[in-house]
Amino acid sequence: MHLFYILLVLLVVTRICGELAERLRQPALVGELIAGVILGVIAHTYSDRFPVIAGLPENEIFIGITNLAIFFLMLLAGIELRPRQLAQASGRAVAVAAGGMVIPLLLGFGLGWFFLPESSYKLAQCLFLATALAITAVPVSVKVLMDLGRLDTPLGHTVVSAALFDDILSLVLLAVLTAVIKTGGFPDTSAVGILVGKVVVFFALTGAIGHYVLPRFGRLLKKARAEDFEFSALLAVALGYAVLAETLGMHFILGAFVAGLFFVRRTIDSDVYDSIRTSVTNFTTGFFAPLFFASIGLHLDLSAATEIPAFLIFLIAAAFLGKLIGAGVPAYATGFTVRDSIGIGSAMSARGAVELIVAGIALEAGLFAHPSPAPPEVAYLFSAVVIMALVTTILTPITLRPLLASKDNTRQ
Amino acid sequence: MHLFYILLVLLVVTRICGELAERLRQPALVGELIAGVILGVIAHTYSDRFPVIAGLPENEIFIGITNLAIFFLMLLAGIELRPRQLAQASGRAVAVAAGGMVIPLLLGFGLGWFFLPESSYKLAQCLFLATALAITAVPVSVKVLMDLGRLDTPLGHTVVSAALFDDILSLVLLAVLTAVIKTGGFPDTSAVGILVGKVVVFFALTGAIGHYVLPRFGRLLKKARAEDFEFSALLAVALGYAVLAETLGMHFILGAFVAGLFFVRRTIDSDVYDSIRTSVTNFTTGFFAPLFFASIGLHLDLSAATEIPAFLIFLIAAAFLGKLIGAGVPAYATGFTVRDSIGIGSAMSARGAVELIVAGIALEAGLFAHPSPAPPEVAYLFSAVVIMALVTTILTPITLRPLLASKDNTRQ
Repeated sequence: MHLFYILLVLLVVTRICGELAERLRQPALVGELIAGVILGVIAHTYSDRFPVIAGLPENEIFIGITNLAIFFLMLLAGIELRPRQLAQASGRAVAVAAGGMVIPLLLGFGLGWFFLPESSYKLAQCLFLATALAITAVPVSVKVLMDLGRLDTPLGHTVVSAALFDDILSLVLLAVLTAVIKTGGFPDTSAVGILVGKVVVFFALTGAIGHYVLPRFGRLLKKARAEDFEFSALLAVALGYAVLAETLGMHFILGAFVAGLFFVRRTIDSDVYDSIRTSVTNFTTGFFAPLFFASIGLHLDLSAATEIPAFLIFLIAAAFLGKLIGAGVPAYATGFTVRDSIGIGSAMSARGAVELIVAGIALEAGLFAHPSPAPPEVAYLFSAVVIMALVTTILTPITLRPLLASKDNTRQ
Repeated sequence: MHLFYILLVLLVVTRICGELAERLRQPALVGELIAGVILGVIAHTYSDRFPVIAGLPENEIFIGITNLAIFFLMLLAGIELRPRQLAQASGRAVAVAAGGMVIPLLLGFGLGWFFLPESSYKLAQCLFLATALAITAVPVSVKVLMDLGRLDTPLGHTVVSAALFDDILSLVLLAVLTAVIKTGGFPDTSAVGILVGKVVVFFALTGAIGHYVLPRFGRLLKKARAEDFEFSALLAVALGYAVLAETLGMHFILGAFVAGLFFVRRTIDSDVYDSIRTSVTNFTTGFFAPLFFASIGLHLDLSAATEIPAFLIFLIAAAFLGKLIGAGVPAYATGFTVRDSIGIGSAMSARGAVELIVAGIALEAGLFAHPSPAPPEVAYLFSAVVIMALVTTILTPITLRPLLASKDNTRQ
């Protein structure tokens, strides 16, 4: 039983690298991912000396804990998202979100169609690439905008709302992707109908429970003064939604995320809300997230850069330009200056946790093992996508700071 | 992958039973244990319908999560214990602690020696019984004393200090037990020397680091304004201590517990301290502890009550009377009234989390499988000890309330 040794090594190395990254004004996850990559390289080079770390990707217990980490990451993402903000989002944000979603989707799908070999998994692989490019990392952009004092401006609101829309849409895409991976090929009309039906059922059920049942339940707990029960109640709802999502053939992260959305200050005691939110944040950022990012880093094979350099360059370019054009042009069309539109496009181009979670899910589903033997474009697809996420996340703050360092200057 | 289904079922059932127990003025862990027992009975009776729950005790991932749960339970126990309080404890508390430790130890060892069959594991089994009887559950007694408004009185201070001493001593006993289980028989003089040496090294190392290194490190973090780093730092220290304990042949719970002791408000920012403490408390009581108690309940076989009734009755009597006499007599001798002395003895007789953790450790180490085939006294030993813990924990508040409902009346 090497559980504590594993957790110790991963936690110490990732947190030190994460802290170093923050000192270099980079998001912590960049450092934590790189920590995983470093650990992976060391463990594989000296696998006789570090057999436990080298064997981690196949370690059942570690996979279980990683899944728990993904669960809490998505729950926290849901808690931090304010649905109200989405409802108030302007037409502008919707335009930016739509453009920032469709263009990368098309680019990702096209890239896959052009580069990847024929196989029964090709469609799923193309769809994976499309989903991976469509995702935007809200926390990274929010952090940078906050640093620059531009979060609470029309530009900031547009970026945040659009990024949130894109994240939710990409989770729906993930539901489609999960179904396509399971059936192997593209579903026929009736299967599409069933899939759409399931997605609708999921959102209808979780929405109805979240809207009508949970607030009553919250008030009941408050009345019964069962406050130390609240945290378990949140987890039970999130676990229930996760199981529901899995039962309907979707991924559990959708359930955890939606449960987080319904955890709002309104229905429970304010102190209890703060205490629970703090706890989930502490455990996620201080324990689960570093473990998850390290696990992704451990899977990453840097030789992707030398094995499929052309594909990797196209992928990174598509990721960056897809958001820049897809989100930037609608921004300009709805009244932002050229400079701000470029800023919005750049801000939307960071990937992050959700992207890596989707990549991890595809890896676990065996998406990168077909056709067998897999040609380099497929074998290194996972690593290429993780490298893309890393590069775009590092690029975002670097391009954004000079662009937005001046005051807000929308044309209208 | 049924992880979320398992967590959902366990969490919902344990928390509902825990809440019901609290409504009946019983500690939550009583309800949570019973929830595990109920789940176990249902799952085994209908194992074709609930194969996942029935298979839990052998589920690798669940065992991993249970170990994580034990880790956090012991970390929290350490955090909640104030070493200062121990240093200020009166001679009274020391006398009560010593008596409340030695008598149950002897009774437990004697009971084992008399009832258990000869085998190379007999010594370890007797030592296990001795340790199990010596443990006192601080939180249960504290809760009851608090309810009765008697916590901040000489009686309350004596009970809490004595129970803390007993808990720490029983962890040292566990170190001996772990060594005896590993070697099979009682260690010879040189092995005892090595064992004592290791225990000394462990406490010297963790004490020196905790006293001299960690406060400096805490101030460094404060200066560097790396506050979101604090929680990871606490976990890293606890994991490091756990790994050190395992390396020295002791159990990891000792490391987690000692790490908790050194997590004090003094060395870190007060707000950060509160936030971290709240987080560990929420996650432990709301997530990890119920899972752990359920897992213990799942292992419990109620037929112990019909298979080894005499042994079980003697065990429960030894558990209750051992503390009542062992702690009550020194209490009376140091100046408490008869009524208060009986109260102190009863308050010390509750077992709880640590006891169950030790039982779980012994179970995992295969202590109850020898000689093979195991006679009923051995095969049902684990279940008997868990039932004993359950009964004494339920008895404590029941006997304590009428005894202490009046005002404090020490003779001195």
